[in-house]
Amino acid sequence: MSVLVVGTTALDSIKTPKAENPRLLGGSASHAAVAASFFAPTKLLGVVGGDFPAKYLKLYQKHGICLKGLEHVRDGQTFHWSGEYEVNMNNRRTLNTVLGVIEHWSPKLPGDYETTPYVLLANIAPPIQHAVIDQLERPKFIIADTMDLWMNIMLPELLRLLKRVDAFVLNESEAHQLTKEDNVFAAMKKIHKLGPKYIIIKKGSHGAVLSGPNGFFIAPAYPLRKVVDPTGAGDSFVGGMIGYLASAKGDLEKNLRRAIIHGTVTASFCCEGFGVVATTRATRQSIDLRVKELEALARF
Amino acid sequence: MSVLVVGTTALDSIKTPKAENPRLLGGSASHAAVAASFFAPTKLLGVVGGDFPAKYLKLYQKHGICLKGLEHVRDGQTFHWSGEYEVNMNNRRTLNTVLGVIEHWSPKLPGDYETTPYVLLANIAPPIQHAVIDQLERPKFIIADTMDLWMNIMLPELLRLLKRVDAFVLNESEAHQLTKEDNVFAAMKKIHKLGPKYIIIKKGSHGAVLSGPNGFFIAPAYPLRKVVDPTGAGDSFVGGMIGYLASAKGDLEKNLRRAIIHGTVTASFCCEGFGVVATTRATRQSIDLRVKELEALARF
Repeated sequence: MSVLVVGTTALDSIKTPKAENPRLLGGSASHAAVAASFFAPTKLLGVVGGDFPAKYLKLYQKHGICLKGLEHVRDGQTFHWSGEYEVNMNNRRTLNTVLGVIEHWSPKLPGDYETTPYVLLANIAPPIQHAVIDQLERPKFIIADTMDLWMNIMLPELLRLLKRVDAFVLNESEAHQLTKEDNVFAAMKKIHKLGPKYIIIKKGSHGAVLSGPNGFFIAPAYPLRKVVDPTGAGDSFVGGMIGYLASAKGDLEKNLRRAIIHGTVTASFCCEGFGVVATTRATRQSIDLRVKELEALARF
Repeated sequence: MSVLVVGTTALDSIKTPKAENPRLLGGSASHAAVAASFFAPTKLLGVVGGDFPAKYLKLYQKHGICLKGLEHVRDGQTFHWSGEYEVNMNNRRTLNTVLGVIEHWSPKLPGDYETTPYVLLANIAPPIQHAVIDQLERPKFIIADTMDLWMNIMLPELLRLLKRVDAFVLNESEAHQLTKEDNVFAAMKKIHKLGPKYIIIKKGSHGAVLSGPNGFFIAPAYPLRKVVDPTGAGDSFVGGMIGYLASAKGDLEKNLRRAIIHGTVTASFCCEGFGVVATTRATRQSIDLRVKELEALARF
């Protein structure tokens, strides 16, 4: 079955202690759609400006991503994020953000997008996530991602969103910010009360935890000796997850566990290059190989 | 087969935001020996002063721990550590340390201790760990634990120790301190070059990672919603590990993985009470139940 991904389509300029990379393809929807495309037909919903390079459109197309929902504002500027990583690649700071065409974007789903069964609301302002849900017809499964910014400036809209989605993805510090709980398991218990049936907490190199009606699933991270650029890893994670989920048949909870593992693996590829460079070099075969590795690494 | 545990036998006074607990049974060897005793006959090697309460000797005995190697210095004081935990139980600070009889202790193994096949050098000064190895006869498997203090003040002795043990256990920040590597997998690669065939990095609530000749094993932590007192969790982890290992037959690497899981579970009990209070309430049955839970939590 097919996947709809909505989120930011951006240009990222990323500085690390070793390199400077201007105007890479970035944004939550770009990373997530590329990741999802390995598993299921993927439709992209986003907006770009007249400065958006044609080569990035080709890159989406190479992955078979449907671009009917990618709006072009010819006289506008693409959302542009500039950031810098510190020596250990753990701390990131934003140098500059130009919202551009995303600031006043109001998403409109092309006709055949409305019935997409699997929907990923990748990280973007909650009102846009709401606007997409408003246009959906009988979705099977909706996953929402978010970031600390929306908890800071749009908490009521985010809380309202949590009642409208099946699964909610956030990282450890966001879970703490939302619940004031240090313990992830205690935090998840509180977040369930806000609405989502399934919660996935991302712990970066420590893996991820799923909480659902049948309890927890503790997922390992793929062991990487070297991280080139972690930008977009969380988006690749949710993208791989929704893509795998759309492709799987049978028991939902079992599929969710496998989806998290497949998301973990697409995220591991993402970390091995700047932007989507390493993710786009992956194949379904190289992904399946790492999934098999993870199975062996976690067996006891 | 039997286990020899050497380390500190101490009194711990532990302050948390919610309670104050003076003169609990503590020390690396106490926690580790109690944990090991669930799986294998366990011999304790340590030293206490005349102030060591008889009730703690009874507690060791209740666990069937052999005390032939527990030296009593009648006119000396038992090693006493006082510490305080902050609100989130993540940060610990030492308020006071009285070394007492441990300061000038030179361990002497009772005759039948020398041939113990499984040996845990729990956290204690490296010269004492060396002195124990010097007295062993054909040990099958030696695990060494340590702490940052010994890296700071006795690094040459610790490095010499690493060439004499089969497995080395440390936490993430110690691995970073020892190798200057942020990435645990890169750090483990460097530590192997220092000697140990097997390395186990403890990541607290994020689980543990084993590195050996056949690659990595990524172990989940047992999900605890509430941590009462994490003091001794690392010692319970290695204690449960060596105890299970001594009880297991067959393939070493497979047994090491299961040993880590059993250590994880004994450590989870330790966190649920002050000192060894919750650990001593555990049974082999309650441990096996949590191991089964972990199997289900990690399956995909």
